[in-house]
Amino acid sequence: MNDGGAVGIGVARLDAADKVTGGARYVDDLKRAGMLHAAVATSPLAHARIRGYRIDAARAVSGVKAVLIGPDLPQNRVGNFIKDETTLAHGKVRYVGEPVAAVAATSLQAARLAAQLIELDYEELPSALSIESALAEEAPLIHEELASYVAVKPGKSRGNIVWDVLMAEGDVDSAWSKCDVIVEGEFRTQAQHHAYLEPNGVLADIDANGRLTIWSSCQSVFHVQQRVAEELGIPMSRVRALVPRVGGGFGGKHATNLQTIAAALALKTHRPVKLVLSRSQDFEMQRSRHPARLRMRTGAMRDGTIVARDTEVVLDGGAYADESPAVVSFAALMSRGPYLIPNVRCRGIAVYTNKLRAGAYRGFGNPQVTFAGESQIDELAGRLGMDPVELRLKNMMRAGDRWFGGQSVTRCRAAECLKAVAEAARAAPALPVRTGRKRAFGYAAATHICGMMGVGASVQLKADGTVALATGVVDIGQGSDTVLTQICAEALQLPIESVSFGSPDTDISPYNWKTAGSRITYMAGRAVAGAAGQVRDKILEHAAEMLECAPADLELRPGGRVGIVGVSGKEITFQMVAGRSLYRVGGPIIGTHSLVYDGERFDPKRATVEFSAFDNPGVYTFGALAVEVEVDTITGKVEVRRAWSAHDVGRAINPLSVEGQIQGAVVQGLGYALSEEMIWDDDGRLANPTLAEYALPGLADVPEEIVPIIVEDPEPTGPFGARGVGEIPLVGVAAAVANAVAAATAARIRQLPLTPERVLEAMAD
Amino acid sequence: MNDGGAVGIGVARLDAADKVTGGARYVDDLKRAGMLHAAVATSPLAHARIRGYRIDAARAVSGVKAVLIGPDLPQNRVGNFIKDETTLAHGKVRYVGEPVAAVAATSLQAARLAAQLIELDYEELPSALSIESALAEEAPLIHEELASYVAVKPGKSRGNIVWDVLMAEGDVDSAWSKCDVIVEGEFRTQAQHHAYLEPNGVLADIDANGRLTIWSSCQSVFHVQQRVAEELGIPMSRVRALVPRVGGGFGGKHATNLQTIAAALALKTHRPVKLVLSRSQDFEMQRSRHPARLRMRTGAMRDGTIVARDTEVVLDGGAYADESPAVVSFAALMSRGPYLIPNVRCRGIAVYTNKLRAGAYRGFGNPQVTFAGESQIDELAGRLGMDPVELRLKNMMRAGDRWFGGQSVTRCRAAECLKAVAEAARAAPALPVRTGRKRAFGYAAATHICGMMGVGASVQLKADGTVALATGVVDIGQGSDTVLTQICAEALQLPIESVSFGSPDTDISPYNWKTAGSRITYMAGRAVAGAAGQVRDKILEHAAEMLECAPADLELRPGGRVGIVGVSGKEITFQMVAGRSLYRVGGPIIGTHSLVYDGERFDPKRATVEFSAFDNPGVYTFGALAVEVEVDTITGKVEVRRAWSAHDVGRAINPLSVEGQIQGAVVQGLGYALSEEMIWDDDGRLANPTLAEYALPGLADVPEEIVPIIVEDPEPTGPFGARGVGEIPLVGVAAAVANAVAAATAARIRQLPLTPERVLEAMAD
Repeated sequence: MNDGGAVGIGVARLDAADKVTGGARYVDDLKRAGMLHAAVATSPLAHARIRGYRIDAARAVSGVKAVLIGPDLPQNRVGNFIKDETTLAHGKVRYVGEPVAAVAATSLQAARLAAQLIELDYEELPSALSIESALAEEAPLIHEELASYVAVKPGKSRGNIVWDVLMAEGDVDSAWSKCDVIVEGEFRTQAQHHAYLEPNGVLADIDANGRLTIWSSCQSVFHVQQRVAEELGIPMSRVRALVPRVGGGFGGKHATNLQTIAAALALKTHRPVKLVLSRSQDFEMQRSRHPARLRMRTGAMRDGTIVARDTEVVLDGGAYADESPAVVSFAALMSRGPYLIPNVRCRGIAVYTNKLRAGAYRGFGNPQVTFAGESQIDELAGRLGMDPVELRLKNMMRAGDRWFGGQSVTRCRAAECLKAVAEAARAAPALPVRTGRKRAFGYAAATHICGMMGVGASVQLKADGTVALATGVVDIGQGSDTVLTQICAEALQLPIESVSFGSPDTDISPYNWKTAGSRITYMAGRAVAGAAGQVRDKILEHAAEMLECAPADLELRPGGRVGIVGVSGKEITFQMVAGRSLYRVGGPIIGTHSLVYDGERFDPKRATVEFSAFDNPGVYTFGALAVEVEVDTITGKVEVRRAWSAHDVGRAINPLSVEGQIQGAVVQGLGYALSEEMIWDDDGRLANPTLAEYALPGLADVPEEIVPIIVEDPEPTGPFGARGVGEIPLVGVAAAVANAVAAATAARIRQLPLTPERVLEAMAD
Repeated sequence: MNDGGAVGIGVARLDAADKVTGGARYVDDLKRAGMLHAAVATSPLAHARIRGYRIDAARAVSGVKAVLIGPDLPQNRVGNFIKDETTLAHGKVRYVGEPVAAVAATSLQAARLAAQLIELDYEELPSALSIESALAEEAPLIHEELASYVAVKPGKSRGNIVWDVLMAEGDVDSAWSKCDVIVEGEFRTQAQHHAYLEPNGVLADIDANGRLTIWSSCQSVFHVQQRVAEELGIPMSRVRALVPRVGGGFGGKHATNLQTIAAALALKTHRPVKLVLSRSQDFEMQRSRHPARLRMRTGAMRDGTIVARDTEVVLDGGAYADESPAVVSFAALMSRGPYLIPNVRCRGIAVYTNKLRAGAYRGFGNPQVTFAGESQIDELAGRLGMDPVELRLKNMMRAGDRWFGGQSVTRCRAAECLKAVAEAARAAPALPVRTGRKRAFGYAAATHICGMMGVGASVQLKADGTVALATGVVDIGQGSDTVLTQICAEALQLPIESVSFGSPDTDISPYNWKTAGSRITYMAGRAVAGAAGQVRDKILEHAAEMLECAPADLELRPGGRVGIVGVSGKEITFQMVAGRSLYRVGGPIIGTHSLVYDGERFDPKRATVEFSAFDNPGVYTFGALAVEVEVDTITGKVEVRRAWSAHDVGRAINPLSVEGQIQGAVVQGLGYALSEEMIWDDDGRLANPTLAEYALPGLADVPEEIVPIIVEDPEPTGPFGARGVGEIPLVGVAAAVANAVAAATAARIRQLPLTPERVLEAMAD
């Protein structure tokens, strides 16, 4: 390790050794004296009115200390956008698997047995399990209490609509006449489960004052704190949220009602309560990626200039709104893709259905619209007789262009990314021919954002000249602890071993909104760089007084030293400055920096934006993917043999980590493209709620090569030029695979996943 | 509870409910998976050279995972003032009970058995067990390696002298000629044990990277972090220190080698290691109050004007320097007492002896000099025929005077405190006469400081308008969590339930030097008020933008609201400001404030100060005590029937807590005055290392009434005017009791404790 600075170095993850040796502790590893175990009873019906509870049998189970039902809890409805959820079902159930009651007992066995013995009297209601049935005239109302809402056009019935957003620029309707070629189609995408290695879990402890301490597998301790307080109707100051190691999130571990269920049981029993979901309950109860129905039309002139795109995206939001308003708004924002299309429109609708809620999932609505959009680019290329890469490059956004909605795009290396993957793919040595297989390359370009919301960080100089970095950022496995430590080390020219990283604690840590939106490197990184910069400035002030010179004459030197510019020797160490500040002059050196994403907002002069859930999402990012696909013409099985994924990350703080993000996202995208699908039967019951039945990609499904290509063009507002890369490498995967399959077989498949059955069927057409 | 503000209210301790219900967790309550138990092998000799180790028998004990001896550890010597300590004895042992080896085993039984089986080959050396034998010409050198040191006068041999300080003002030697009455005498005080309810303990955990996490019963997590890192020779960034509840400290729980012993065992075994001392080992191994020999001379004119005081104080520091340099310097600083004596001198010497180290203990050298000083005031009064209260009042410092050394005393209600206790005592209804008992009042005035060193705090606004307060302050049972929370609540006009208090974590919390020096309310309170003030200012800025007015037009209103001065209604809530800052404008609101005590330093034009361990100790505090004592003339037993203790606390943040501090300190002072004494036999072995043998005051020894009297004169630099009161109520207790005994029996006893034997003997003289 070098003496000072750590940006651009592929540092091994700080948490790696603990994880590979089994030392890392997750929620289920935690124990407290007197701890009870909890289990949740869930709805067997997709839609029903609750007429009564029979809990005596559950109460009679030996070891049961508390049974909790909906009416025991405050009925305040919560939700980030629409307040439509209660902790436990109240009055109605709206999906199979919805928590209706919970039990705390001295053993997990007793708790689960008792949960099974809880019976509710239901009056079954007709259910809506698909977008079509939810939007039908005679559709059963899933949330009768929500008569109207701001995002629904005045005078219109809300029905089962969660959110209804419109974005438009130019004049789409009259643009079609300028088009020589128009492609049009309906696309369908499925529900994908997050399939984090660790199911959701929580341990809630309580002190004699009734103050709660909550450890949970989550993406934001602050969000957990806020949600538990809101659901229970208590001040946030009465809730402390902590986090052990988290076994993956991918958007699926924003706070849920689980934390509150455990907290409510702790309040009722005055004992610590642990609730960890089984894999099946996690599948049935938590969240999915939104299934979507997309209708898209894209038109171009003969020379390949794309003139117009019109999109209707309908997202199946499941039984509760959760993040649907944001996801559908983001899908609309991304519907233009990384292209400068002058006339563009997207109407996005999210609907309620009687299934588990859909929510945030790596990509956040973007993989759905990109599947449609990038498929249509290839279709257009085919119709125009153009190379699909050339068509993309011809229309691609460049630095200085404006985004759909009017925001400036100051940096954009989209074209370079696409060229890089195309060149790499074409230069790769040809694979040996296999009989019965058709093989082709497929391409997709992608765009995404990083940014959003507030974050803070603090950096503190220790007595020995090392520093303590604290953020409220939860590392959900993506490596942010390491990256943020590198940023701090770089700013102070210290080796990373001299920087400690504090574990998030809502009582102490600076706020962070969430580990979401590809935002940690960019947003938390800015906060860390700002806080470290304050420490640097204070160190220089002290050193200047000690050396009797101006701070501007001084420079940091690697390893915690300050010297006079141009003069060797005569150095002040950080340790000397620390001693002076802690014991004599000025006080402990603590840098604190907080910020909120403050980019441009939509420009109402350029665009019509109605009911978008946000208006300044973040800095735009760009990337591209090439895949080489082999289709078995007998079985229809699609195999992705190689992939090249290039992304402009501004500056790779940790190249190893960027490569890991790219490779992991490609694999997760391949699951989405080829095999993963949550399937509900006609009664609304999830048919494949286990890892045995839900077809995650296995080792055999991973391509021989996934080549990450890092493109760097420093982002002026980013920490050391960095942008986020957490989501974008997943965004275009399904489209690239579909394009490769079409190139190999001439079969254009518009429904995910590309199962062997669908491939065979399309080839037969 | 009121809506906003909490200063001046006797709030029940936030930790009280947890403590009385048994829910509070202390080190020994903590468990970690795979945790080992540790035991320490100690020296049986007071002074010996180590010739060899025999550890095979210990290693052979079933369950033993590691045996650690001195040579296994880095030999870097540590110490705040003199680097004379190693983690385990190395080369020599210097007191009976000194740790020479440690064992980690799967059970406590195995660890303790193995520790007993460790044998060292010793070459016994002559020992020095008293001040006299340590200073004797032929005294054995306890630290040969310390040939000379800055605090020893040039050209003089260091011998067993730890520190040698001189403070002088005026011209003492020629002042005696102006005196009509001179009293002179030698005083002796004993070693007192801190007798915290919870013995010292530590749990050290280690991750796969070798980073340590240390929970310990301590007075400063930052000091633990620093000391463990220094002893092990690793960066502080590799050590995280936390603290569960602490069962008392009183100065005895600054970091010791225990934390490092457990850490070293964790490093060796790669498993968590818990080490909790037995009561006997805690007595034998940890710290005591310094035994002292004082020679004092005080002279006055016939009218009672005190003209001169000359003091020599020799402190028995035990085998290691620890805080002795600071304690002896502080004793010198306090030797003038709260009186304006123009000619004053104190030479203070701390010596090494072959006993456990003496260190910080509530009062920090002041109870020793005050015992002598206040005894001599009564002796002078007797010789002058004056009322001892009147004599004190005549010479007492007043606001605007200067302290011994030259520092300004801007606030001083010493006289009011003394008048208050004297009036209260004299107005109290007379107790019934008991035969065979002599009864009298005794008085003492006292002075002390609060302040010192660095501290920080942060306050963060939560989404719902409540706030999180974080400091690095360890509440050792004195109630600082509650007081600091009140200060924060007051600054923001919130109810205290809206303020959470973070548990110290060296990875995140703002630095605090130590819970010591009566400094938390004053120093940490200033940091909290500063941080909360920043939050208030930022809230007002947001509200001003939201209301389109100037921040100066706005006022905080109770319960988290901001309104326009003179206008009712039109309010902005903290919650509205929080939402705006977290999600749209400015960023999360975090106030951070840090400071270091920056009072005046000694004035070299007024005073001679040589080798003082500090030069700006803090803000001076004042108080007084009256006791009513009954002496059994047959048995010599002294019973304190009633006590009145008045202190100028500036402003009582929490009057209940101030009263508790006063009452607790009076009882601890009575133990010091009457019964507590650590007794060593001629071989240097502690004869009474158990609570059965060491005579702590029991319930029967506590006076029927201890009347706390709070005097308030706001300190301009203090948070809401507060000063510290943690130590001063103990300072004068022994003197007041001795004065009462002398008043009742005419026997002047100059040696503590005032045991029945000593009282009978003195009465017989």
